[in-house]
Amino acid sequence: MAGKTSANPIHAALELDPIIHERVRLAILSALGTQGRLSFNELKALTEATDGNLSTHSQKLEQAGYVRTSKGMFGRRTQTSYEITPAGRQALMNYLDALDRLMGEVRGK
Amino acid sequence: MAGKTSANPIHAALELDPIIHERVRLAILSALGTQGRLSFNELKALTEATDGNLSTHSQKLEQAGYVRTSKGMFGRRTQTSYEITPAGRQALMNYLDALDRLMGEVRGK
Repeated sequence: MAGKTSANPIHAALELDPIIHERVRLAILSALGTQGRLSFNELKALTEATDGNLSTHSQKLEQAGYVRTSKGMFGRRTQTSYEITPAGRQALMNYLDALDRLMGEVRGK
Repeated sequence: MAGKTSANPIHAALELDPIIHERVRLAILSALGTQGRLSFNELKALTEATDGNLSTHSQKLEQAGYVRTSKGMFGRRTQTSYEITPAGRQALMNYLDALDRLMGEVRGK
């Protein structure tokens, strides 16, 4: 059983967490994983996403328990900020491990 | 310019070729890249995809010039087989290189 997942690049590809695999979500989670807490506007600038796109994808990450949001006042405006959760960090590491297996298999063992 | 793409995990994520990034297409291209020519049924068994799903995704790879198909008679039945093109192999290598940059940035330089 233990060796099964690493025996085949196809299995490695199909193991990739679909919540994380979408490119904008991968960009969001990578940003939060490396840069800590970020505001909506900071995330938007980094990912070059539209407001709607960023909202949709960050909500999906929040529903999965990978990201948490908090709201605070910034002058007279409410600002939403985002950070990765421990579960999100673990899921991101698992995702990178699956990519490692895929890359090892495709590049030739 | 040369260093820009590797300076940020978000840029690396957004650089990932969307044609290849979809998981079933990644599985198809990885399979053809490592195992050579495969029949529709072989690919279907490997990727655990439905007929419709496999058709759709392999057509998309073919339209991008990453995969070519050929038809031959197998007994009394026509069999379609698939192989990766040189452009497909190059695109797959570029994709893996972008993943390398992403992983290096996320795991900490």
